[in-house]
Amino acid sequence: MMPLSTFAAALPALSPSPHRVNGERLWQSLMALAAIGATPKGGVCRLALSDLDRQGRDLVVQWGREAGMAITVDQIGNIFMRRAGRRADLPPVMTGSHIDTQPTGGKFDGNYGVLAGIEVVRTLNDLGVETEAPIEVAVWTNEEGSRFVPVMMGSGVFARAFTLEHAYAATDVDGKTVRDELERIGYLGDEVPGVHPIGSYFEAHIEQGPVLEDACVTIGVVTGVLGIRWFDCTVTGMEAHAGPTPMGLRRDALQGATRLMQGVVSSALRHGTAGRATVGMVRVHPNSRNVIPGRVNFSIDLRNSSDVLVDQQVAELHEAARELTAETGLVVDIVEVSRYAAQPFDAGCVEAVAAAAQALGHSCLPLVSGAGHDAIYAGQVAPAGMIFVPCKDGISHNEIEDARPEHLTAGCDVLLHAMLARAGTG
Amino acid sequence: MMPLSTFAAALPALSPSPHRVNGERLWQSLMALAAIGATPKGGVCRLALSDLDRQGRDLVVQWGREAGMAITVDQIGNIFMRRAGRRADLPPVMTGSHIDTQPTGGKFDGNYGVLAGIEVVRTLNDLGVETEAPIEVAVWTNEEGSRFVPVMMGSGVFARAFTLEHAYAATDVDGKTVRDELERIGYLGDEVPGVHPIGSYFEAHIEQGPVLEDACVTIGVVTGVLGIRWFDCTVTGMEAHAGPTPMGLRRDALQGATRLMQGVVSSALRHGTAGRATVGMVRVHPNSRNVIPGRVNFSIDLRNSSDVLVDQQVAELHEAARELTAETGLVVDIVEVSRYAAQPFDAGCVEAVAAAAQALGHSCLPLVSGAGHDAIYAGQVAPAGMIFVPCKDGISHNEIEDARPEHLTAGCDVLLHAMLARAGTG
Repeated sequence: MMPLSTFAAALPALSPSPHRVNGERLWQSLMALAAIGATPKGGVCRLALSDLDRQGRDLVVQWGREAGMAITVDQIGNIFMRRAGRRADLPPVMTGSHIDTQPTGGKFDGNYGVLAGIEVVRTLNDLGVETEAPIEVAVWTNEEGSRFVPVMMGSGVFARAFTLEHAYAATDVDGKTVRDELERIGYLGDEVPGVHPIGSYFEAHIEQGPVLEDACVTIGVVTGVLGIRWFDCTVTGMEAHAGPTPMGLRRDALQGATRLMQGVVSSALRHGTAGRATVGMVRVHPNSRNVIPGRVNFSIDLRNSSDVLVDQQVAELHEAARELTAETGLVVDIVEVSRYAAQPFDAGCVEAVAAAAQALGHSCLPLVSGAGHDAIYAGQVAPAGMIFVPCKDGISHNEIEDARPEHLTAGCDVLLHAMLARAGTG
Repeated sequence: MMPLSTFAAALPALSPSPHRVNGERLWQSLMALAAIGATPKGGVCRLALSDLDRQGRDLVVQWGREAGMAITVDQIGNIFMRRAGRRADLPPVMTGSHIDTQPTGGKFDGNYGVLAGIEVVRTLNDLGVETEAPIEVAVWTNEEGSRFVPVMMGSGVFARAFTLEHAYAATDVDGKTVRDELERIGYLGDEVPGVHPIGSYFEAHIEQGPVLEDACVTIGVVTGVLGIRWFDCTVTGMEAHAGPTPMGLRRDALQGATRLMQGVVSSALRHGTAGRATVGMVRVHPNSRNVIPGRVNFSIDLRNSSDVLVDQQVAELHEAARELTAETGLVVDIVEVSRYAAQPFDAGCVEAVAAAAQALGHSCLPLVSGAGHDAIYAGQVAPAGMIFVPCKDGISHNEIEDARPEHLTAGCDVLLHAMLARAGTG
């Protein structure tokens, strides 16, 4: 991780701007939106394109209209809310996120980014600030992917990572399609996805990890997104009775698999400072107390700040598998099931976030996002950056997801000033 | 494992006896019994106290009667078939095993021991050999424990390891009790379990392991049974998102668990030559590809030739768990769920088996049985020994279980001569 001083040295000393968002109003909006789909345990269940998603969208659009914004909806249901700038010819400075949640999701994931955008506009209205470029707040469709895959669907179609037809055809467990559900809830718009211009894109989000809290830092300046590689791994040995089979005559698939699991995780520490490796899923066959496992399937999730570093982790994994087979005769099969390239954010947007944080006097850290966000796809079609704020214990995708109002306010202030810096106030 | 020369040095040079069993007849009996409950894949499904078990018992009892034996059934359904000796006052030299199978069991496990006993009697009849002590063949009830627990039920009640009432109360998945099913199939006898005298007990069995086949040896001289200790182990860490959580801030329960799994298995090699350790069952929570596991449950099966050696393995397990907690903060919980003491067989019976094998010119190896057998409980009330013969690839409890006719015949010949040595021919 870059030391704080890296930013400090690179930036001119800015005097704090007088503009501040209304943190109390932001919090009230978050709580009002969280009431739609609220769960008994304090979380939110508002699945994409459900009736609750419609209620949430309606409320957000109503707030947008009340703040004087013009509404556009595209064919994948992405909502763009526009506050005019002095120059209609300039592409808007956009912020946004999503309001769909996991089935046992929290109040902040996604929702914060959308409502922080609305609070930015309300603040500009309150202060009578006019910007050169227009300001827009986007609500991207189905970021979570809980009900319909792929994840980050709205921003993905927008960035042409996959087609509108592919997204339309996705079905939920009841066989309902994305297109039919968009139409049903009244958010099947006219605009062709991707034609909407974006000058710069910022997204405020809870970190969903423990780094900021652990470091007692308020603002994460997100410099990019980790590259991800997913594998399904199978180790095959010979099933045998645990009693009569001496150690020397075993071909224990689990012993081979656990050796690979240990190896792949320790390998993450040897490649850069952001390397990650996770074995999350394990299946043992036949999974019986007194039978030596004959086959073990497990997942491997590798991440790093560059694709070259991920490649190095992958090479070590394959090398470890070859060694295991040579030494034990166990058969190892490794299949790549998914990959996302590492993606650095735009240097100018990253600098705008860092400058705003420092000008406002907030402690900040450069971070690489380990999770997916709409900003990834937005960043493929426009300069983009993200602002992270701490969340309690790093926990997200969970009903106990929590964040402190002062951190949410600070992140929103940073968003305001980063957007102003890019939009210009003449 | 003891070297072959240990036996060779201890035994007098015996000239081969002229008596030999009829291997062809033994094989025909095995195939005839295997037809009752035969599965399409070449195995047998004949669960304890089922209609098929009754058919199997009826056939074996019919063969016993045809061989001139008197039948006794005790209150747990154990069948004793007796060929009179010259001296009715001597306790019988007994052999036997079980004819119930696993749901996907094979033709040989158990069945071989019972039919080898019948073949011994048929051979004595053919040759007109009279023994001093009576010869008996036992069919023990429900050794497998697939339908009703505990396993080795008939011999266990006989040896008073648990009560008749405990066994009677056991139910299958449909709620049927052992007592009712015994009565239904007509094998609820009168004799009080355990009152039946036994002078010596021998049991012939397929090895169910790979040692004899690997060593190209025909006869396993079983010197005892491994002690067994079973544990349920839980490692608890902190569930977290695989993406945003850096390696240094993780408490990955699976990484802790796999370290223990590696350690406990390597520990088996450090304590004696018969030490065994198996992790057979693993459950990972929440078992999701991109979530760092927060909890892992797994089973540990430790075995060794003496309880002292098992204790040493257990001590190393607890030490490894303490180290893991100290270094990582992961919480480790280890619960013993079952234990069986190591049990050496009677030196005289072991020597009788070894002498018979060598007199007959068969290669032999001393072995410690890693699996449970009725001979364990019989050995708690009488001098006992076992004879192992190789099975293909060491595979048992499987429809592909297989054994070579010449090995089965050799084992039966060894049984004949060991029993004759103990029964006396005057």
